[in-house]
Amino acid sequence: MNQTNATRVGIDWGTSNRRAYVLDDRGEIVRHHSDDQGILQVTRGGYVSSLWELLQRLEVQEADVVMCGMVGSRNGWQEAPYLGIEQPLTTLRDAMMEVESGLPGVRCRIVPGYAYTDPQGMPDVMRGEETQVLGALALSAANGWFLHPGTHSKWVRVEEGCMQQFATFMTGELYALMSEHGTLSKVMAQRESVPEAFAAGVRASEHGGFTHLAFCCRALVVTDRMPPEHTASYLSGLLIGAEVHDILRRPETRIEAPVQVIGSPTLTSRYMSALELLNVPARAWQPDSVFHAALRALFNLEP
Amino acid sequence: MNQTNATRVGIDWGTSNRRAYVLDDRGEIVRHHSDDQGILQVTRGGYVSSLWELLQRLEVQEADVVMCGMVGSRNGWQEAPYLGIEQPLTTLRDAMMEVESGLPGVRCRIVPGYAYTDPQGMPDVMRGEETQVLGALALSAANGWFLHPGTHSKWVRVEEGCMQQFATFMTGELYALMSEHGTLSKVMAQRESVPEAFAAGVRASEHGGFTHLAFCCRALVVTDRMPPEHTASYLSGLLIGAEVHDILRRPETRIEAPVQVIGSPTLTSRYMSALELLNVPARAWQPDSVFHAALRALFNLEP
Repeated sequence: MNQTNATRVGIDWGTSNRRAYVLDDRGEIVRHHSDDQGILQVTRGGYVSSLWELLQRLEVQEADVVMCGMVGSRNGWQEAPYLGIEQPLTTLRDAMMEVESGLPGVRCRIVPGYAYTDPQGMPDVMRGEETQVLGALALSAANGWFLHPGTHSKWVRVEEGCMQQFATFMTGELYALMSEHGTLSKVMAQRESVPEAFAAGVRASEHGGFTHLAFCCRALVVTDRMPPEHTASYLSGLLIGAEVHDILRRPETRIEAPVQVIGSPTLTSRYMSALELLNVPARAWQPDSVFHAALRALFNLEP
Repeated sequence: MNQTNATRVGIDWGTSNRRAYVLDDRGEIVRHHSDDQGILQVTRGGYVSSLWELLQRLEVQEADVVMCGMVGSRNGWQEAPYLGIEQPLTTLRDAMMEVESGLPGVRCRIVPGYAYTDPQGMPDVMRGEETQVLGALALSAANGWFLHPGTHSKWVRVEEGCMQQFATFMTGELYALMSEHGTLSKVMAQRESVPEAFAAGVRASEHGGFTHLAFCCRALVVTDRMPPEHTASYLSGLLIGAEVHDILRRPETRIEAPVQVIGSPTLTSRYMSALELLNVPARAWQPDSVFHAALRALFNLEP
């Protein structure tokens, strides 16, 4: 293949969705596309045709494709082995795994994720957020904690280009499970955001474990201390608060720089509120800009 | 109605199931029946006919009926206001609420539940377990902690006939939600009990909050440190361990007597294992005997 004619394409290919960007020679975004063709929608042997359709849509023929996220998981296109956190984030560029697409003129690489085992021996894994952290660092983000809200919300502590630790929380997934099924779902028909209920949930999260406080949420309604339409926001506050307190309680945690939040505007604003309530400084990053910066780093394009 | 001819009937009428006992004049159980006609199965105006059918099945005409559990909730037959924990458990006999059944010769009373607000201002509620505690005390249970495993597992501390505090955990509900839906459910097809995986979950529960450890359970599988068929037992251990640690961490908690576990044999044995692993002394009670003792107390029959 003629590498010099290849167009650079970066894809964040997650569980439910994917977003793709075409970069010109100077590294500027010239086209982008996002859809719901996450790995759950792609059959085992369907990745080549799914990618081909995506490239068609992006009007790209020969391409140098870099992908991150769950596409590199066991349930994705091909498993890219995890790196250990002793590998600096700049390693990602060289650690990308080649995948044979069979498409003429298309080179395809997957960014590996990271695995980490905490001092208690508990493992944790990440696929996709490492690329966002790389991008934020390329944009001169300070050392300290990075936060990626989502279905599986992740907190990452970075010092001198290396992750020191990270921790994932099932926040978004538990919120969805409890909103759609179970005893709280019955009073959660109304889902509009109620800031004071969210704040009450965040504050309550300090007092005890989530599995107890989730029942107290029900008790607040049953004893007429909270209107049913506040339940969704309160539960969201409880879950997000549980994350923040888990991090703050770790003996090694010192928040010396603002927590850097990289996520969708809705989730990010919710987390920013919670962090403010708990007196944790924070700043929000625009995820598209961060991913763009990551792609420039992965394609070795100077800013 | 002729009270003296009335047969004593006690019903534990819960959310999903109910169990009913007929007592003779000396307070012995002469007949019993259990079915799945919990309050979820009974329509708003359907309680009288549901009770009438139950009495038919128990071969009872005139009856003095005492009911406890969710039948007294807002979504049950009629709401019996909660007592505060300053009311001794022996108050229950006089605090039962009369319900008009309209059935000739049938007197109907509902045992009220309890509400409690903890020192942080968080409310908690109970309906049904108070009757079990009353029964255990009638059987000379020692003071200290009582544990009622279930969908909403409850820990109750009793001193001198009064509840001092109680706390509910969404343990069973979260286990069901996560087993049937969500990312862990996909690897939880096999549900047989794996004692070593349960023990590992109980031990892990000490290190951090549940919403983080639930994700680590997934990471253990993804990183090949735990076979998928261990997930269900591990998650059960995590959830039950979270309960025990929440109680043990409370500054006022001192376990001076065995925790008294009142529940179904399967759940009770699981909790007994967890308590043993965490070096908490415990004893199990047979729930039918305990409820029988409670009924004798509520009907004012001396043992």
